[in-house]
Amino acid sequence: MKIGLDVLGGDYAPGSNVEGAIQAQKLLDEAHRIVLFGDEKATRADIEKAGADPSKFDYVHAPENISMHEHPTKAISHKPNSSIAKGFELLKKGEIDSFSSAGNTGAMLVGSMFSIKTIPGVIRPAIATNVPKLKEGFGVLLDVGANADCKPEMLNQFAILGSIYAEHVYGIASPRVGLLNIGEEEEKGNNLTIATYPLLKENNKINFIGNAEGRDLFSDHADVVVCDGYTGNVVLKLAESFYVVTLKKGFEDSFFARFNYEQYGGSPILGVNAPVIIGHGISTPKAIRNMILLSRDMIASKFIERIKSAFN
Amino acid sequence: MKIGLDVLGGDYAPGSNVEGAIQAQKLLDEAHRIVLFGDEKATRADIEKAGADPSKFDYVHAPENISMHEHPTKAISHKPNSSIAKGFELLKKGEIDSFSSAGNTGAMLVGSMFSIKTIPGVIRPAIATNVPKLKEGFGVLLDVGANADCKPEMLNQFAILGSIYAEHVYGIASPRVGLLNIGEEEEKGNNLTIATYPLLKENNKINFIGNAEGRDLFSDHADVVVCDGYTGNVVLKLAESFYVVTLKKGFEDSFFARFNYEQYGGSPILGVNAPVIIGHGISTPKAIRNMILLSRDMIASKFIERIKSAFN
Repeated sequence: MKIGLDVLGGDYAPGSNVEGAIQAQKLLDEAHRIVLFGDEKATRADIEKAGADPSKFDYVHAPENISMHEHPTKAISHKPNSSIAKGFELLKKGEIDSFSSAGNTGAMLVGSMFSIKTIPGVIRPAIATNVPKLKEGFGVLLDVGANADCKPEMLNQFAILGSIYAEHVYGIASPRVGLLNIGEEEEKGNNLTIATYPLLKENNKINFIGNAEGRDLFSDHADVVVCDGYTGNVVLKLAESFYVVTLKKGFEDSFFARFNYEQYGGSPILGVNAPVIIGHGISTPKAIRNMILLSRDMIASKFIERIKSAFN
Repeated sequence: MKIGLDVLGGDYAPGSNVEGAIQAQKLLDEAHRIVLFGDEKATRADIEKAGADPSKFDYVHAPENISMHEHPTKAISHKPNSSIAKGFELLKKGEIDSFSSAGNTGAMLVGSMFSIKTIPGVIRPAIATNVPKLKEGFGVLLDVGANADCKPEMLNQFAILGSIYAEHVYGIASPRVGLLNIGEEEEKGNNLTIATYPLLKENNKINFIGNAEGRDLFSDHADVVVCDGYTGNVVLKLAESFYVVTLKKGFEDSFFARFNYEQYGGSPILGVNAPVIIGHGISTPKAIRNMILLSRDMIASKFIERIKSAFN
């Protein structure tokens, strides 16, 4: 298993990324190799400086970086030696089994869709995120930003993508799928959710439990909550801001602690031909470490094969 | 000034409503009368039992109640002697200056739109809610549920409705208006927000400051945040659930305390020909009291006249 990591992406790169890779490597089996995309010489030196052994890692020399504010499509095509472009190049060739980066989200999406491409049958990939549950553990919310406008058929597919992710990567048996909506009853909602409800109801690949309202997100109501990427992104950023407030106010609590993105490392792009994970721009070593472990879990669970067979 | 209040609507009615009305009456000028819609004899008895003077209130005998789960349109037409139907009847005739209820939200919306009607020029009314600001005070978020699907022109009008409300009822000078969106840049968003942005930019009746992301809602970024009613309702219920969590966890804080709907009493329906306020189903006496005081402030600020002249 070869787990690709962008060393250059993120606000604290490369230091945080190298440190996270070193931490993750200690937790991996011998057969699992982390492949580092960045300036090879500098990365080896950084690893050595951190007191670790550079030979425990593989390297792909990709010294250019796509910054946070570059135009994704242009950057990928104009910077073939960037860590993200190289990552997708090798992912497409099958020389690595997953790729993750805390860098330019748009470039990660563009790379996913135009390089490794969407799985046949999937209309559009979705970005999933973890949602902490009040009681314990996590649920899954998607889409949180890949598709600002969605069709009912897309939401119906997100339900399948999210279910398989929750079941096989997070070990939730027969995950309960809810449709993010503004009422409990089937006939409630906007045009999109009203048209989506019957599709979800008839979808025998999922365990649909009906609508989930804003107040149900953190309760034990549903394991997977499906919505369009505009709403999901608003919800995600709102929830993050609440977490930041509790931090600032010094409210320590295991539930609020689970909002910390460091706990799960990153948000996968579901529906493309390989595991791709987007890390938070401010990824710490712990976040990078967990992003690598999530990559491993996605590969080990044969997540991509399961998605392919569901959409076959 | 005659302030109409539904005595029968809400989970804790009539006790909570009567108690709230008694509290509010003590804070009103002599010229301000609270008009109570419910069973007149029972209401008078309740007021006396609570140790207050029934002659300080006006009464409209409306003994029927529209319950939370009744179909709004049917209930209003089939129950002409219900407190909500009577309230709108008198509001339309100008015999009361405002009407508020913690009862069936749908019936309040139907009454607003089909009885007192939308102000000429306003495409659709919107429900506004208070949003606590981290630093101090409140902002305004709308629409939070009246219109699950919106057109750009509607959002552009919500911006005007929200601005006038924030300025004249809450005393925020030149309120900053933000468009709830998923990025800072003008070109970001879904079809609706992308089409709405230029309208807001060119709208010289408002102080538009650009996009507001989910994370900006509680910051000092904008005073009025505009969105479609689906998104607003999801955001509102999510925020409420956070507040409930902080309560359960025993986190006391002045910011979180401002999430308590009791603090502001209710959510006005903006864009109709009279002040109408919807209270929370679980309205306590304090919430009812503040809903009455908000009614007074809406009447006193000549809010309706200001909206009319803005849409003239």
